[in-house]
Amino acid sequence: MAVKVDLNSDLGESFGAYTIGMDEEVIKLVSSANIACGFHASDPVVMRRTVEHAVAAGIGIGAHPGYYDLMGFGRRNMNISPAEAYAYVTYQLGALSAFCTQQGAKIDHVKPHGALYNMAGKDYELAKGICQAVYDFDPKIILLGLSGSQMIKAGADIGLCCANEFFADRAYEDDGSLRARTKEGAMIEDENEAIERVVKVVKTGKVTTYTGNELDLKIDSICVHGDNVHALEFVKLIRSRLAEEGVEIASLSKVLG
Amino acid sequence: MAVKVDLNSDLGESFGAYTIGMDEEVIKLVSSANIACGFHASDPVVMRRTVEHAVAAGIGIGAHPGYYDLMGFGRRNMNISPAEAYAYVTYQLGALSAFCTQQGAKIDHVKPHGALYNMAGKDYELAKGICQAVYDFDPKIILLGLSGSQMIKAGADIGLCCANEFFADRAYEDDGSLRARTKEGAMIEDENEAIERVVKVVKTGKVTTYTGNELDLKIDSICVHGDNVHALEFVKLIRSRLAEEGVEIASLSKVLG
Amino acid sequence: MAVKVDLNSDLGESFGAYTIGMDEEVIKLVSSANIACGFHASDPVVMRRTVEHAVAAGIGIGAHPGYYDLMGFGRRNMNISPAEAYAYVTYQLGALSAFCTQQGAKIDHVKPHGALYNMAGKDYELAKGICQAVYDFDPKIILLGLSGSQMIKAGADIGLCCANEFFADRAYEDDGSLRARTKEGAMIEDENEAIERVVKVVKTGKVTTYTGNELDLKIDSICVHGDNVHALEFVKLIRSRLAEEGVEIASLSKVLG
Amino acid sequence: MAVKVDLNSDLGESFGAYTIGMDEEVIKLVSSANIACGFHASDPVVMRRTVEHAVAAGIGIGAHPGYYDLMGFGRRNMNISPAEAYAYVTYQLGALSAFCTQQGAKIDHVKPHGALYNMAGKDYELAKGICQAVYDFDPKIILLGLSGSQMIKAGADIGLCCANEFFADRAYEDDGSLRARTKEGAMIEDENEAIERVVKVVKTGKVTTYTGNELDLKIDSICVHGDNVHALEFVKLIRSRLAEEGVEIASLSKVLG
Repeated sequence: MAVKVDLNSDLGESFGAYTIGMDEEVIKLVSSANIACGFHASDPVVMRRTVEHAVAAGIGIGAHPGYYDLMGFGRRNMNISPAEAYAYVTYQLGALSAFCTQQGAKIDHVKPHGALYNMAGKDYELAKGICQAVYDFDPKIILLGLSGSQMIKAGADIGLCCANEFFADRAYEDDGSLRARTKEGAMIEDENEAIERVVKVVKTGKVTTYTGNELDLKIDSICVHGDNVHALEFVKLIRSRLAEEGVEIASLSKVLG
Repeated sequence: MAVKVDLNSDLGESFGAYTIGMDEEVIKLVSSANIACGFHASDPVVMRRTVEHAVAAGIGIGAHPGYYDLMGFGRRNMNISPAEAYAYVTYQLGALSAFCTQQGAKIDHVKPHGALYNMAGKDYELAKGICQAVYDFDPKIILLGLSGSQMIKAGADIGLCCANEFFADRAYEDDGSLRARTKEGAMIEDENEAIERVVKVVKTGKVTTYTGNELDLKIDSICVHGDNVHALEFVKLIRSRLAEEGVEIASLSKVLG
Repeated sequence: MAVKVDLNSDLGESFGAYTIGMDEEVIKLVSSANIACGFHASDPVVMRRTVEHAVAAGIGIGAHPGYYDLMGFGRRNMNISPAEAYAYVTYQLGALSAFCTQQGAKIDHVKPHGALYNMAGKDYELAKGICQAVYDFDPKIILLGLSGSQMIKAGADIGLCCANEFFADRAYEDDGSLRARTKEGAMIEDENEAIERVVKVVKTGKVTTYTGNELDLKIDSICVHGDNVHALEFVKLIRSRLAEEGVEIASLSKVLG
Repeated sequence: MAVKVDLNSDLGESFGAYTIGMDEEVIKLVSSANIACGFHASDPVVMRRTVEHAVAAGIGIGAHPGYYDLMGFGRRNMNISPAEAYAYVTYQLGALSAFCTQQGAKIDHVKPHGALYNMAGKDYELAKGICQAVYDFDPKIILLGLSGSQMIKAGADIGLCCANEFFADRAYEDDGSLRARTKEGAMIEDENEAIERVVKVVKTGKVTTYTGNELDLKIDSICVHGDNVHALEFVKLIRSRLAEEGVEIASLSKVLG
């Protein structure tokens, strides 16, 4: 059976008169969409349209809940309680879910956005607030998070099916965490190197860490971007290299199934 | 079989550190709650708590979507398109629905709030945007609106089950519309008169209009308020008078069933 | 002495991670900037940067207050009271003014945005709320509005110095109002025609109305846009034609002085 | 000459249909008002009214800028940059200042709110962003902060006149910091003890720390609350005890002058 991997990308981040992202292009290249839910980006009109496009493209639909910080695009850490996280994620999940229901679709996965993703990756209690909200809403929804993070741990503890995400352009530490952006060598600048890392981790389950060690890493999805023409080209390169290697691009439920 | 009528009240209008309404008191006195959904009032933490209370009280749960105007409490007319209304109502419905789902409950009805209620009562196209969103989300949800309004007309045209609301403290014109607040005699100031009007419309289906005519009015629900001690007393008076008359207070699905 | 006219454009409409407008290009081509104040567009970081750019370019600085409707970009009518308009305009004026003060500059003019501009153009009481706020804050600030509108009337009645704006791409009715966008012939589609209308109204104070009559119109400023490359080209064409005709581009205070 | 001290209280925290605080009562009992500026609380209509009341009462007017987090009432830490803090504080200062200008008044002091106060008390760079914004807007504005905090240090370094605030109901550590709320004994529960601590620190410049040491603390202002009847009674007790001791209640500029 062919090795499978999911390609996920953030979609539907436009807001009112403001446009972000080349959604129409990137939607053709990925197998899962993380759709913004109106807190850090998007609005109800954009959400409806984005769900329509994702349904038409036949890709997996994910909720992409974030902090209630449109001005900061959800990228700034905020000190919210687990109970607040539970309520905020439920609200966003439900809102997106309604647009799916109207179009005969369902939410396949949840991937928290930006600072919420990062904080929940390190804070088990915050992560539990998020994951419990997802589980209580629909226990069949897949949690997409950073491999080895507290969020994946909390999701598994609560009973969610968890999918591990890989970042092609980031260096990894020996413990499986992402090397902090503030440190030297945090970013994989060379595109070919980044792509070969993707191929390797998908096919062999191994990544070379910053210190040069080989780390076991079970990977279900690769995070890609559609902000600009260059990013789109990179996604195309990943797709063609994976195809060469006989790796099938498939949505999360098929990768995990 | 006993005559039945629903008593509905707006609940869950607090926001963050701000409190509005005596929810714990009024929830014991009504059969349906219109729960704010975060646009004109409320926040996710308040919504979760309010759904819990409504479920515990065993009353009907309604979504109370409004304009995205927290500063004006959704009371100011805004010129939104039917497509925007569709998306905004879907978003709010879905958000509230998720809290219901988590607690094993369902949304029974939808009653638009404030200026959205008033504008959709007069603007058929706007009302259709709202009602289509409700229908596409769940065609079994009941639309609660002003008897004889464009909103009720749109709801019926689309196929929603519609419930007619009566305002105890407002005068009616001969065409069944509410007498405008700017006109003399718009408000029924005398409490006893207001209560007797309720009893009459529930039992006989007739209301005396401002000009003194008798108007046929099919009524399913009475709108009551829980903002202050006085309002609560008024609800208690209505309840005891209806009990004296053998009228049963029941949630919308039972009244309409 | 040369005939003078101001060219004004909306600037600083970006918000957080979202970008709108080619500010760096258009700022070189106009004599007055209408700077968004955070209600319908912009945020404090964008406002600071935009004021810096306007000060560096030496152009007139205007406040561009709008409805508190970021999701609708201030383009949707909202039913606010004159007292609310007073407070909202004061708030936005003050916020922009603080960035000017920090950089040794002052607010030269105020031009309400979008739906607020349109509604105040027709509603004298609303316009008075806006103009009184401006006057009470600084009576030397110039009001920029549609020639012949209720807003200009209210501004003059209150004692503000008023500047009349001309729209190059819009047809005018015989009473001096803009022909409604919903009507045939509302837009001047031909660029050359639009430019010649500008030249004529600036030099002769006359515009040909939709019905073919010649209307007297005293004009102080032309509204231009910088949203895209095509719009910028149009501004350059206007500038060169005005230069050919010996018309000087100057900021409002110089045009009115 | 009599010993003087300022009593400051947060005012104008209502928002739209929501009311917080007994402003009309507390305004008679304090010498300085910290007026919310629309980010963590308040709206332009409330700000205008609050400035009117403060001007009428003849008390010192302070800006009370906070995080842009109405849902959390500005009490949740947010990770903003010093440049963002600069812009956010400028925006709020300017907005409040415009209402003062309209009424012939000026901003006397600035006291950051809630989480911004706490974070800037510990983070010198954040505090510098705030203080530089104040200084660049008007170098005569007084900074009101926690005695010994990084905010006071930053304010002094930048050239602002700084006033030290004392919390009657909080225990102090030996280094002059507030004992963390999470620790035992953080709150001074006994009202009489709290009042005697105020009298002592005002008259002698000394406070007994949690460990029992005597700490030198120069105090200019006491923070009091007006949220409820009990809080108001406490303010009255402080006033009468200070009067007994011959201490004069005066606004910050008089205390510092």
